[in-house]
Amino acid sequence: MSVFSGNLLVAHGGGPTAVINASLQGVIEEARLHPGIKGIYGARFGVEGLLKEDFIDLGSEDDEIVLALSHTPASVLGSCRRKLTEADFPAVLEILKKYDIRFFFYNGGNDSMDTCNKIHLLAQKSGYELRVIGIPKTIDNDLAETDHCPGYGSAGRYAAISALELWRDVESLPIHVCVMEIMGRNAGWLTAAAALAKTSDEAGPQLIYLPERHFVEEEFLQDVSKWHDKLGGVLVAVSEGLTSPSGEPLADSGLIDGFGHKVPGGVAQYLSDLIVRKLGIKSRSEKPGLLGRCSILMQSETDREEARAVGAFAVRSAVKGESGYMAAFFRASQNPYLTEYTLVPLEKVANAEKTFPAQWINERGNGVRDGFIEYLKPLVGSSLPDYAVLGKRPVPRVK
Amino acid sequence: MSVFSGNLLVAHGGGPTAVINASLQGVIEEARLHPGIKGIYGARFGVEGLLKEDFIDLGSEDDEIVLALSHTPASVLGSCRRKLTEADFPAVLEILKKYDIRFFFYNGGNDSMDTCNKIHLLAQKSGYELRVIGIPKTIDNDLAETDHCPGYGSAGRYAAISALELWRDVESLPIHVCVMEIMGRNAGWLTAAAALAKTSDEAGPQLIYLPERHFVEEEFLQDVSKWHDKLGGVLVAVSEGLTSPSGEPLADSGLIDGFGHKVPGGVAQYLSDLIVRKLGIKSRSEKPGLLGRCSILMQSETDREEARAVGAFAVRSAVKGESGYMAAFFRASQNPYLTEYTLVPLEKVANAEKTFPAQWINERGNGVRDGFIEYLKPLVGSSLPDYAVLGKRPVPRVK
Repeated sequence: MSVFSGNLLVAHGGGPTAVINASLQGVIEEARLHPGIKGIYGARFGVEGLLKEDFIDLGSEDDEIVLALSHTPASVLGSCRRKLTEADFPAVLEILKKYDIRFFFYNGGNDSMDTCNKIHLLAQKSGYELRVIGIPKTIDNDLAETDHCPGYGSAGRYAAISALELWRDVESLPIHVCVMEIMGRNAGWLTAAAALAKTSDEAGPQLIYLPERHFVEEEFLQDVSKWHDKLGGVLVAVSEGLTSPSGEPLADSGLIDGFGHKVPGGVAQYLSDLIVRKLGIKSRSEKPGLLGRCSILMQSETDREEARAVGAFAVRSAVKGESGYMAAFFRASQNPYLTEYTLVPLEKVANAEKTFPAQWINERGNGVRDGFIEYLKPLVGSSLPDYAVLGKRPVPRVK
Repeated sequence: MSVFSGNLLVAHGGGPTAVINASLQGVIEEARLHPGIKGIYGARFGVEGLLKEDFIDLGSEDDEIVLALSHTPASVLGSCRRKLTEADFPAVLEILKKYDIRFFFYNGGNDSMDTCNKIHLLAQKSGYELRVIGIPKTIDNDLAETDHCPGYGSAGRYAAISALELWRDVESLPIHVCVMEIMGRNAGWLTAAAALAKTSDEAGPQLIYLPERHFVEEEFLQDVSKWHDKLGGVLVAVSEGLTSPSGEPLADSGLIDGFGHKVPGGVAQYLSDLIVRKLGIKSRSEKPGLLGRCSILMQSETDREEARAVGAFAVRSAVKGESGYMAAFFRASQNPYLTEYTLVPLEKVANAEKTFPAQWINERGNGVRDGFIEYLKPLVGSSLPDYAVLGKRPVPRVK
């Protein structure tokens, strides 16, 4: 019996994460185990590299480089935000055939899963046997049909540790409100992760605002004022994608991204200025932005291991004959935390968006509920750092 | 012979750093060794705590808490930005006497060294025997009369690792310019530290702008354009305190700080918008801000050890009878890197500011010279992470 065989092509789409290279490691390691997979190729800069036939030979990479991938930030292949159109299809098909690509993996978010699905359907329609599996990746955690997404746990850990340290800073010089902006245009998953930093009801971030709720400035100012009266210092976590009650971005950079989406910008700075102007309270903003998706020191080891495992699972699925699916996560158990891997049809994931669940947002819309914390905790890996707290025994007053 | 004895008071002034608690650890550990030092007190929230007699008993803190201080961010004592005025002097003197404070340590930057000097002079003039030593601390590295300042090495490590990871991110999706804002209003030391991320001439940050040079927008846009043409992605590091050729802040938050200084704000966002508007190139900004001074994962171990050592040195100096000095660093040798501790008169440090040396800025004013990198390297501790780079062996083209 002859084994189905040919070359493998893997590519990255959309913004990188702290663990997208870990998935690449999983793909390469697994692919090396299967005799049906001949060449292991990587397309440079996503579908751009596919169209340009800009392929590199991943099979020939040294073992130690492959091993180091899981601790390397950004995308070592390079990524892109290009969407394929019908006009690209003949060229794509020709190139796949010419290079005898029989296994295709696209590692990205919902836009990329759409691209992946298009390639799957194109091959299917043309009678070209190609096994296509999408590998999930997004710090936004907004892919449908999966418990969570690789990249989210690490970015969530970054958001949580940053909020933890920032609150220690604000608390130690409690003269201002600090507004911290976190990525996530339409989905508040990542901003919500800052809540993990709360070690008590009074600990920061005292206020958290997600894009799933329209933002009401009057309520925000009331809430900030209340906490400022109580503590002096206040930490606020806001999503970059907050919108006004009319649905417009609260702060808009004026840019349009490669997928045609409006790019929000400067929400934290805007709100910080608002606090100064309306409340006369000192305020400043921090916006780590992209830093939150490329920190290796703040990688979640769970996220890293799962990213690697899901890459390997995608390859195994394709070798078994599957195509047209995204590899997904299923939480088999919460305690102990156990993840299983499964396949979901690409058409269900393509361009869908799983926003933050309404039942995990508190009534006032300025914080998250415990159910979310339970969901999040295993994803960010080991416990957050436990910093020293002084006993603060007062020196008796001298009369 | 009777030993000079009394109680010790330590306080923090100005913005915290990643290692100010390490200096506190050094103070407590050393103070416990000297029988002349009776109570070891900490003032909460700097001179505010002094005036309110809000003192905590540091001598009674558990050993394990004291040990953990060097790995704890922000200020565990609390800090303030209050300056003492003549009107405060009688109360200060009365409180020092009432609590039999004979050893006073103020841990801060140049404004705090001024406060420290005032207390020294006040005691001296009043004939009250008080031994006052300033302990340096600032991420800005702008204190005069010392080779460098505790807090700078860690913040520098944060800036360098952040730039390293950010460049990997930008390089892997090379569709935009990324402008990264780094703290430092008048001194460019911290922004300059991002240069350590450059692993080659082409690696980011390709452009670095310090506040020591007036910023010329036309030249900036030319430089950005040139790099964008060459690489697609560009990383720019800018100081928050950049000024226009007329000396005005490039971007001004409209705030005035507790010391009466104008607070700059939003430079990176401003420049990013300028790039979009004038060059039609996509651009975004990141502003980690305070995160850059409170990260324990990015602490420099050299900085941490030196911060602890200089705290202990300050106590030893006071026990020996010294007063009116700041503990300072002298670089005894560059290779191997060796630091010695010395004392410099507070009056020489108070309110002085050591800006970035002109000879370490390149001619165009958009980068730093190698001499600075040599100076910086030992301060940030161990080597920066060495991430995987693929061999990128091309797959032969198929005709």
